[in-house]
Amino acid sequence: MKREVVIIGGGFGGIKTAKLLAKADVNITLIDKTNHHLFQPLLYQVATAALSPGDIAVPIRAIFSKQKNVKVVLGEVVEVLKDQKEIRLKDDRCIKFDTLVVACGAKYNYFGNHAWEKHAPGLKTISNALNIRERILMSLEKADQIDNVEERQKYLNFVVIGGGPTGVEMAGAIAEIAKRNMMRDYNNFSPEQTHVYLIEAGPRILNGYDESLSQKAVEMLEELGVEVMQGTPVTQIEHEKVVLENAAIESPNIIWAAGVVANAVIKTLDVETDRAGRAIVAPDMSLPRHRDIFVIGDAVHMKDADGNPLPAIAPVAMQQGKHVAKLIKNPSLYDAVEREPFQYLDKGSMATIGRARAVADIRGLKLSGFIAWAMWSVVHILFLIGFRNRLHVFVEWMWHYFTYKRGVRLITERPYD
Amino acid sequence: MKREVVIIGGGFGGIKTAKLLAKADVNITLIDKTNHHLFQPLLYQVATAALSPGDIAVPIRAIFSKQKNVKVVLGEVVEVLKDQKEIRLKDDRCIKFDTLVVACGAKYNYFGNHAWEKHAPGLKTISNALNIRERILMSLEKADQIDNVEERQKYLNFVVIGGGPTGVEMAGAIAEIAKRNMMRDYNNFSPEQTHVYLIEAGPRILNGYDESLSQKAVEMLEELGVEVMQGTPVTQIEHEKVVLENAAIESPNIIWAAGVVANAVIKTLDVETDRAGRAIVAPDMSLPRHRDIFVIGDAVHMKDADGNPLPAIAPVAMQQGKHVAKLIKNPSLYDAVEREPFQYLDKGSMATIGRARAVADIRGLKLSGFIAWAMWSVVHILFLIGFRNRLHVFVEWMWHYFTYKRGVRLITERPYD
Repeated sequence: MKREVVIIGGGFGGIKTAKLLAKADVNITLIDKTNHHLFQPLLYQVATAALSPGDIAVPIRAIFSKQKNVKVVLGEVVEVLKDQKEIRLKDDRCIKFDTLVVACGAKYNYFGNHAWEKHAPGLKTISNALNIRERILMSLEKADQIDNVEERQKYLNFVVIGGGPTGVEMAGAIAEIAKRNMMRDYNNFSPEQTHVYLIEAGPRILNGYDESLSQKAVEMLEELGVEVMQGTPVTQIEHEKVVLENAAIESPNIIWAAGVVANAVIKTLDVETDRAGRAIVAPDMSLPRHRDIFVIGDAVHMKDADGNPLPAIAPVAMQQGKHVAKLIKNPSLYDAVEREPFQYLDKGSMATIGRARAVADIRGLKLSGFIAWAMWSVVHILFLIGFRNRLHVFVEWMWHYFTYKRGVRLITERPYD
Repeated sequence: MKREVVIIGGGFGGIKTAKLLAKADVNITLIDKTNHHLFQPLLYQVATAALSPGDIAVPIRAIFSKQKNVKVVLGEVVEVLKDQKEIRLKDDRCIKFDTLVVACGAKYNYFGNHAWEKHAPGLKTISNALNIRERILMSLEKADQIDNVEERQKYLNFVVIGGGPTGVEMAGAIAEIAKRNMMRDYNNFSPEQTHVYLIEAGPRILNGYDESLSQKAVEMLEELGVEVMQGTPVTQIEHEKVVLENAAIESPNIIWAAGVVANAVIKTLDVETDRAGRAIVAPDMSLPRHRDIFVIGDAVHMKDADGNPLPAIAPVAMQQGKHVAKLIKNPSLYDAVEREPFQYLDKGSMATIGRARAVADIRGLKLSGFIAWAMWSVVHILFLIGFRNRLHVFVEWMWHYFTYKRGVRLITERPYD
């Protein structure tokens, strides 16, 4: 009997694991809630209408159409039954595993304020992005129809909560829409009347980066017209309103990018977690006392050699996937009493701020401005090409037109009617 | 005072009229329910996941961003008050006009069976197309999860009702998905198990075309694996079920393409209409006894020199728009006691059937197969380039990437939450 490997999640970690097991003598079942793998680092560009959903998503089936040992299942995992070695889906189907890789990712954390989610959507799925895109566009249309300056103002306000990389990228991109790109299409108001706020509760934005880069990011955002408010906790979010300690901002465009929590599947593992609900695992990424269950990516809490937690970014998830795949492929490593520990190779991190600005930290080399942005562009284009997507757009479009290859097979969570 | 020209509808007719009035000494207000102009002839390709919404739609504001005499209004017209010379929007705003061009288009007609709409959506908007796309994709996913052959079958059935050009194109495109393109991605069923039905109540499909082309179309569809049922009226549509006189087909994929009715705005004009609710107008496209109100495009009933009704296609709408713009631009023509009548120049009509097949009738020259398809492709690509859209995709993509030009500003009717 072949070993049954079940992977929960078709994000960067899950896909990497499955791909690296292509030649392994195992049966793989990959389960995801959606039918597509999403290039999340560019999701903010869908939310700001720069890219189409089809440009940053590929059907998971298409990724594995030639890898015969992978079965793709569309479904939502609700429970892992560790002792029975099976997982249960929402529709009560159960799937047995010999080895389980939990790569279920994270979702936005509203710190217990569930009501806020409705007023301030996060940015994790294509649906989220389209929803935010429509709010922004509708808001500008409304502003164009209101002549009273005071009544109009709230439709020209944009609020991003959370100054991590996603919040910074989002605020920069919105400022470019609201201050530049689309403004010539509206007659009723001018770019100076639009306000883009980036609100961070902590003392500085991009707090995972060196302090000098945070400062650069603030400068670049301000050049774009973003009003950066650091050390400013949000106390309440209501319908079209953000309340701060000493002020309130009215806006139908409130975007939440302030902290994540691991997917609820982790809870059912009955494992120790950190404050963000992320599993605390053994050095080889497996659960303590359950050597056949691994957790990788945004759902796991890992520290680097210096004791700093690893960031929730694609390279970490992919390297962890690679580590786990290596163990599964090699019985001698898998069955070793003391398995090889996972080690993260930090290739750097970067965040863009608008059209031609970014900050980057490449193993201690700190860059900002155009050069960091050029590097960011190259890295992301190369990365997308890996998923046959940007290449699709640049080169294969004409070919696709004449062969009718299906590139946009995305099931978002749009309800049927 | 400049003449106030109000145009209802941002389809082919309305856009053409407004564009040709660029140098006219008038103020134009263009009103549409959505914020985008839609290249409807390719909408079936969005429904079948070949194109992204952004590929076939352009923001109306972007079309007119350099034409300063146009004001774009997002709104739904509910009533034309002929005598007051104003129109009323759903939100009760009223807009005065000196000249009105009603280019409001048509919607699908369920012949009084309103309940059918929910079970068998039509294909008029981007929302429709995305909805149909998701139904088709979800259906294949479900089929992949059901092992019982009989229970599975309905998820592998696809039904298109109505054998006009849209129905034929849709059936051909679905057959290509369901019989070819995506099948290698599913393990649980084979292409022979999928069924695509094209159901036409009348004696033949493509009944606006020569009978020889209808016959060719049937042959080409059958080659693709479509089961063409002519002379087969639908008697009832229920949830996931189409009832015919002697049979019933179970399927979650039912698409309605059988007949249209003019938009409800026409009713408020209090004008004589045909059975499809289309206004019957004077030879110059104006309303009888209301020389300042014109109706063009799919919302109007016009006959050619031989007494045959003009088809509901883009070239007719655009030529009518051109005619009306010419009248508005030239006071001597506009004020003439006997205005110039509209004359349609038939440049031909064509319908595709799948990847490399089509039928075309170019002023009596009847073509079918690959040559007709090649012609169809060229015409449509050229046409899209006119709207800077295909060109966008082919040539400007890299440029857009680096300049962050917003290409995908579409507000579909997706609800906010």
